[in-house]
Amino acid sequence: MDKRETWRRRSADTAARKEAAAPLFGTGKEVKAKDTVALLEAVIRAGDIVNIEGNNQKQADFLADCLNRVDPGKIHDLHMVQSAVPLPAHLDLFEKGIAKKLDFAFGGPQAGRVAEFIRTGKIELGAIHTYLELFGRYFLDLTPRVSLVCAFQGDRHGNLYTGFNTEDTPAIVEATKFREGIVIAQVNEIVDELPRIDIPGDWVDAVIQSPKPFFVEPLFTRDPAMITDNQILLAMLSLKGIYAEYGVKSMNHGIGFLTSAIELLLPTYGEELGLRGKVCTHMILNPHPTMIPAIETGWVDTIHCFGGELGMEDYVASRPDVFFIGPDGSLRSNRAFAQTAGHYAIDMFIGGTLQIDKFGNSSTATAGRVAGFGGAPNMGCDAKGRRHPSDAWLQCGRELPSLDTLTGTMPRGKRLVVQGVETFGEGRKPVFVDRLDAWKLAESAGLEIPPVMIYGDDLTHIVTEEGIAYLNRCKDMEARMAAIRAVAGFTEIGLAAKPSETKALREAGIVRTPKDLGVDPARATRDLLAAKSIKDLVTWSGGLYNPPARFRNW
Amino acid sequence: MDKRETWRRRSADTAARKEAAAPLFGTGKEVKAKDTVALLEAVIRAGDIVNIEGNNQKQADFLADCLNRVDPGKIHDLHMVQSAVPLPAHLDLFEKGIAKKLDFAFGGPQAGRVAEFIRTGKIELGAIHTYLELFGRYFLDLTPRVSLVCAFQGDRHGNLYTGFNTEDTPAIVEATKFREGIVIAQVNEIVDELPRIDIPGDWVDAVIQSPKPFFVEPLFTRDPAMITDNQILLAMLSLKGIYAEYGVKSMNHGIGFLTSAIELLLPTYGEELGLRGKVCTHMILNPHPTMIPAIETGWVDTIHCFGGELGMEDYVASRPDVFFIGPDGSLRSNRAFAQTAGHYAIDMFIGGTLQIDKFGNSSTATAGRVAGFGGAPNMGCDAKGRRHPSDAWLQCGRELPSLDTLTGTMPRGKRLVVQGVETFGEGRKPVFVDRLDAWKLAESAGLEIPPVMIYGDDLTHIVTEEGIAYLNRCKDMEARMAAIRAVAGFTEIGLAAKPSETKALREAGIVRTPKDLGVDPARATRDLLAAKSIKDLVTWSGGLYNPPARFRNW
Repeated sequence: MDKRETWRRRSADTAARKEAAAPLFGTGKEVKAKDTVALLEAVIRAGDIVNIEGNNQKQADFLADCLNRVDPGKIHDLHMVQSAVPLPAHLDLFEKGIAKKLDFAFGGPQAGRVAEFIRTGKIELGAIHTYLELFGRYFLDLTPRVSLVCAFQGDRHGNLYTGFNTEDTPAIVEATKFREGIVIAQVNEIVDELPRIDIPGDWVDAVIQSPKPFFVEPLFTRDPAMITDNQILLAMLSLKGIYAEYGVKSMNHGIGFLTSAIELLLPTYGEELGLRGKVCTHMILNPHPTMIPAIETGWVDTIHCFGGELGMEDYVASRPDVFFIGPDGSLRSNRAFAQTAGHYAIDMFIGGTLQIDKFGNSSTATAGRVAGFGGAPNMGCDAKGRRHPSDAWLQCGRELPSLDTLTGTMPRGKRLVVQGVETFGEGRKPVFVDRLDAWKLAESAGLEIPPVMIYGDDLTHIVTEEGIAYLNRCKDMEARMAAIRAVAGFTEIGLAAKPSETKALREAGIVRTPKDLGVDPARATRDLLAAKSIKDLVTWSGGLYNPPARFRNW
Repeated sequence: MDKRETWRRRSADTAARKEAAAPLFGTGKEVKAKDTVALLEAVIRAGDIVNIEGNNQKQADFLADCLNRVDPGKIHDLHMVQSAVPLPAHLDLFEKGIAKKLDFAFGGPQAGRVAEFIRTGKIELGAIHTYLELFGRYFLDLTPRVSLVCAFQGDRHGNLYTGFNTEDTPAIVEATKFREGIVIAQVNEIVDELPRIDIPGDWVDAVIQSPKPFFVEPLFTRDPAMITDNQILLAMLSLKGIYAEYGVKSMNHGIGFLTSAIELLLPTYGEELGLRGKVCTHMILNPHPTMIPAIETGWVDTIHCFGGELGMEDYVASRPDVFFIGPDGSLRSNRAFAQTAGHYAIDMFIGGTLQIDKFGNSSTATAGRVAGFGGAPNMGCDAKGRRHPSDAWLQCGRELPSLDTLTGTMPRGKRLVVQGVETFGEGRKPVFVDRLDAWKLAESAGLEIPPVMIYGDDLTHIVTEEGIAYLNRCKDMEARMAAIRAVAGFTEIGLAAKPSETKALREAGIVRTPKDLGVDPARATRDLLAAKSIKDLVTWSGGLYNPPARFRNW
């Protein structure tokens, strides 16, 4: 067909779908929950690109369940594009043949099933992305034809209130609706007046009050009671050897107990080091409960969030000088902008991993699990488009002896990308390995290249109980590998370290042990934590933090 | 002051400002144009971070003029954060002492005055950014306290219709309003009913109907009549040696005549090469008029735009299968998402530059002009967070012999970053230089490091009339420098090329001349252009393209 004959195939198709759905609409854009399956059957066609809002945290779970109940004879081979696939319902679609292809960023609890489905041909894997990268493709070659999103409240004009957990909704809706797609929203409640409008009604085709509130996961809550002395040692090393050494003011903290430990040391060990006002002043971060003591003691100027965190609603609303909030007084999160800031504006990303290879490449992928990395690759890389300088960025770049092999005599800064790991991790498995399990996964899942979370040339520092490897100070791959060995402890990689080599690296300041840094391991005990339990966090918050039941043991 | 005593300083301050402005409001959020200066004096305080919407194209010009008329005794030392500073009024603020500090991305016609003001101390320069990077900082450490934005229409509830030229408005408004800042919008017209809502009224504090429509620049219109045979040769080399060689499906074309020539060769030379459907199917691009013939002949599936382009309104509205449009039928542009896709989703950036140094670093900066680079660094870099493969990206990475110095044995793809330049550019100045003028600018403007548009390690290909240097195939800096010399023609850099070295590079496929590529320079004439004039473009568009007066000579 000659394209010049018609340029409105997409809108004609959309109009036909909406006409088929017209009898299901009540007042304005409201559709009753009982008619949802019929609505989906009216507006979705076999082979469509479909997005189910599957965020890091909040889930359009009712719509996912309803999509599982459509007739696979009519609707099949869908191409699902979605940030995360954490719900069984997301995978059931593939089991039933309703969906065929998957492009995503984070697998979470379904990672094992994703791997199995790929192996058995139930899922045709598009690619694993970082969140912002996937959003980018929504505006290029993976634009959803139909999107199933969720919000706290909606009105009958289609206006949505996403409130505390805005997350990915604006990116999904904009890409879909402005390419003549169809947007269906499940809301916990249809009301006459919204606290604020997060998504204009123009952008939404149908609003459904779901039978129960959407599922939301408290993914960023770490119980201080679970933090170990070893993690506290790593946190002390990080604060003294990296935060203080580079004066890192802006950063993202990955999910995990090490970064929780760092957060809880700010008001104690951080204060002792005189770092208040000098580090951690600007953060891109979900509202971690373990940040409460640092916020309360005046460490933090600003936090912008990807999403919310269950139980932190009232606390955040009561600290509007720190958080981004809306005119209604509640948090405005937005993953697209938080990841943009996380990529371009912050000076450091610090997080953990399951494996680091001898070159410094790291991954959380294992042979039987296609997990994805969420936002880590976006923040845990050197943002090459960055042009604004900061002291930390410039210092990290100045320390790079190999820069001349890349840019000649032209200077450039570098993002700090730090991985903090105990040399033996979960289940006493060695974190330092000769070859990442990601290779095996690539083979079994038919990936073009192994899924790496952070590449070796982006990684600037490794912190272990042995000390810190300043990889950015290494002149070549050989030095880098030696520095990695030096902090790899009793893993096989670590046992290959040569004492003379390690000594030379220590003298050059490329490797620094706790002793070199003046950190006394004997002080690394839980006494140093500003809060030792969830209950302590509630106390610090003046009763404003309201932890989910599973974190309450009092 | 102990932070714990109050957490609502920002909202209390905002409330006080709004109360001071209350007498100026008429119906709803409307303020009369004549009261604008009084409004600004009521809501802005000395030292504030202020954003004047200064986009690539549309300008909040009336608000910029009004800000120049406030009392500098009351309002002074503002910290301006804005994408571009193209209007004299933007600089007048610094002349008058109303503003003091500047963070921006693109200087345009004011680049010379920016440089002069920095030298004479009238401007304290924060930093030069790429657009998306600056947006990121709006959510971290450069959040505007007051933003002055513009839209086509608004209503008295504050709802805005940004329409065809949405550009930066959503990013600015979200950062400002959700951190309790104040948003003031100038609109061409206040109406009762908007064609669609682009910015919800909740997010806007005041709407002013400006005395005349906002200024908008047709920045992306290139007259085909100005394209030279040499540019056509470069375009042929690019199409055969890069587009076809790598099968590049998704890309951004920088501003300039080379990329216009490429666009106009698609339906002719591109067709001859059999490339339709194989390259240029998905683009992140403003609605370039020179894309019309390629669109009309069915080359392009999708275009998402940063902003609009004057005269292209009706054409775009009539090609909804290609462009992103709203329910009202007109273009939805959005710089934040287009740049996100431009960074993460596309396989290639191709553009020009004023200077390339012997290492491959390039810049458009000259000693007397602080111009900035807009979106080029964001798209013209290897997006290190990217994780999804594509054939072009994988091939470019496979060709990289130096990857082992970065990631050991771990494979990775690489974005194609191409610069197409004639060896002698504007004013017959050599494009290839020993040392970039950016060094002189850094010195005179007190920059920490020279402002580089694209760094050598991100650049993968250079196209000149001598041929193509495949820098991604060079094993080290020495080979890279030799390849650059080989295509640098009669510039001093080019004259240093050794014939034996160039021969070896040609044999290795690292340098390819027109002859090597099978491109006959004799065919590189204007006859090959699908459209030879603006009038031809109008004809191709079926009369839908309506060029601005200055481009009409019939």
